[in-house]
Amino acid sequence: MDSPLGHSQPTDSLTDVRGLRVGHATRSGEGWLTGTTVVLAPEGGAVTAVDVRGGGPGTRDTDALDPRNLVQRVEAVVLTGGSAYGLEAASGVMAWLEEQGRGFPVGGPGRVVPVVPAACVFDLGRGGDWRARPDAALGREAVARASTEVVQGSVGAGTGAVAGGLKGGVGTASVRLSSGYTVSALVVVNAVGAVVDPATGVLYGRYGAGPVTYPPQELHTRAQARLAEARAETDRRQATEGEGAGAGGAGAEGAGAPPFGEPPLNTTLAVVATDAELTRAQAQKLAGTAHDGLARAVRPVHLLHDGDTVFTLATGDKPVPEGVLESLMAVNAILAAGADTVARAIVKAVEAADTVDGPGGVFPAYRDLYRDLYQD
Amino acid sequence: MDSPLGHSQPTDSLTDVRGLRVGHATRSGEGWLTGTTVVLAPEGGAVTAVDVRGGGPGTRDTDALDPRNLVQRVEAVVLTGGSAYGLEAASGVMAWLEEQGRGFPVGGPGRVVPVVPAACVFDLGRGGDWRARPDAALGREAVARASTEVVQGSVGAGTGAVAGGLKGGVGTASVRLSSGYTVSALVVVNAVGAVVDPATGVLYGRYGAGPVTYPPQELHTRAQARLAEARAETDRRQATEGEGAGAGGAGAEGAGAPPFGEPPLNTTLAVVATDAELTRAQAQKLAGTAHDGLARAVRPVHLLHDGDTVFTLATGDKPVPEGVLESLMAVNAILAAGADTVARAIVKAVEAADTVDGPGGVFPAYRDLYRDLYQD
Repeated sequence: MDSPLGHSQPTDSLTDVRGLRVGHATRSGEGWLTGTTVVLAPEGGAVTAVDVRGGGPGTRDTDALDPRNLVQRVEAVVLTGGSAYGLEAASGVMAWLEEQGRGFPVGGPGRVVPVVPAACVFDLGRGGDWRARPDAALGREAVARASTEVVQGSVGAGTGAVAGGLKGGVGTASVRLSSGYTVSALVVVNAVGAVVDPATGVLYGRYGAGPVTYPPQELHTRAQARLAEARAETDRRQATEGEGAGAGGAGAEGAGAPPFGEPPLNTTLAVVATDAELTRAQAQKLAGTAHDGLARAVRPVHLLHDGDTVFTLATGDKPVPEGVLESLMAVNAILAAGADTVARAIVKAVEAADTVDGPGGVFPAYRDLYRDLYQD
Repeated sequence: MDSPLGHSQPTDSLTDVRGLRVGHATRSGEGWLTGTTVVLAPEGGAVTAVDVRGGGPGTRDTDALDPRNLVQRVEAVVLTGGSAYGLEAASGVMAWLEEQGRGFPVGGPGRVVPVVPAACVFDLGRGGDWRARPDAALGREAVARASTEVVQGSVGAGTGAVAGGLKGGVGTASVRLSSGYTVSALVVVNAVGAVVDPATGVLYGRYGAGPVTYPPQELHTRAQARLAEARAETDRRQATEGEGAGAGGAGAEGAGAPPFGEPPLNTTLAVVATDAELTRAQAQKLAGTAHDGLARAVRPVHLLHDGDTVFTLATGDKPVPEGVLESLMAVNAILAAGADTVARAIVKAVEAADTVDGPGGVFPAYRDLYRDLYQD
């Protein structure tokens, strides 16, 4: 797919930024519907930044990323299901990195502390078992599997993801700018807000990004009805589960249905990467503009119950021009591409997801609801 | 116009939040094309917050708005042309407020310091004279004129505004939520990025916000050609002006055309208001989500050369519910409405603008380029 700002890359995925790898660990069935995704930097790490704009974030080791703080480069970033419990997955990634001697050196051979920033999505109970959450072992499994092939859809941290009642998941995209820089993104779409325009059935992220195919009204009406049925059925199954759950079970969800339909703690996570040699402050600015991709593809977004968080990894393969104006213009193009690439990755995540019909609920896939759009 | 989140208000403007007033001071002709807009709070002030997300902001007295800092309420906010020079307009507003005894009391009768946060847009040279900028007198004029009637288009801080080569300006909108709260916005659209989808001619802010009318291809092609001509003509006039200007003249603009067409320091400013009794921290969160309205209506946005800044004023007429969940849901709806209302105000600003053809350039109005859309 071509973008107005450049051309797509061989794999149209995060790993088009050379040196990056992605690993998923996925658990589903027997009460499980969750997982962990690790983005692994080249050995020696990448310049890493974060911008947290959701009102209900769950994160770990993000304060270290403030450009004023000590650690200059980071070896891996973790996205995980399991809400704040799932942040434990980062421990497994740290253990794996420590064994490789990768991390911030603190004196003496093999003595490193890997800073592994992590952010989570809320998917508790989606598989039926409120306590089935990623742990350190799952994080370790994900990082050990890291490769340049990025699987999309209901995998890794996107396994239990839901967006406005639709099945969410992992999506990825990349663009090569005319300046030669690559900008890529990986997202986990688990939003409180909608990714589909309820008036038309169009994925919000498609607006303003090329020709839009409007679903026929009849198809859209039928899809909306099926989605409403699925939501009602999910509420029934969650209520039943709640009766059987102990303290800290589904009670929090039952305490009042939020106006946006899904459980009250959802999140869109993103990792945006570039091969440009950004400073840490520039990387942080990129994390900020990448949130504009969320704003375009998810509505509403950044509310109190979203944990919306964007990480940036800049591998630094390609220097930024030295002239002041040239440098600003190069960075501007990267900032703009960050937003565009995130919006496109969100579209791809929703389109790649598979319908789930399990003990924790019914979460229809967009491709199933709007199947006629995808047939020739 | 109805919104999916509520109903529009009597005036569909910022002042639908009771007690707020807006005043414009406008200078055009004889080298001038600039002005100042003041939003005046009810006596005693409003809870005020700010979120600066552009990379090239020009602001004054914004650090006082950090929720950790002293001043609890603010009497007025200033939006102004004249780039950082124009921030002087706030001095005139301060003088006017001091005369009224309005401001932060610092001991003794009449001893007040009015905190008047301000942000500027870059419009230098747009009227032909690089040195024709708002000053304290213009700020005073604007606040003295404050009323509940909000004029839109090429007035006040929007007088010299341009957005992606089109004439920008002031726009305003409001919505009354089903919960009873009013959320309103006033924007000054002066963006580096485009407000019009170059592929279709549709204003970006219209996507996902109800039925979209696509201009006929022929109309759009003609409009794009006229816009390109206007840009070229503007470049010619600015170059001529630069030859006559002294040091610090148009040279900065001539030093290399930025990739997004217009002068390199543009900005979208917004004031978002609500009658809800928000805390200062909640008001700051609202300023953040309001930036999502910018993300939807302007592309790209929040780049290094944008000074994108959103202020929030919460008058506190209507309390937020006391229950934790009820309070969160009420605030969530306000946060979402902030983004929607800002996007709609941006559309209205562009549609209200008038074409300018003067010594500083040719800035066509969207309504003129796409006139056929507005005829029955």
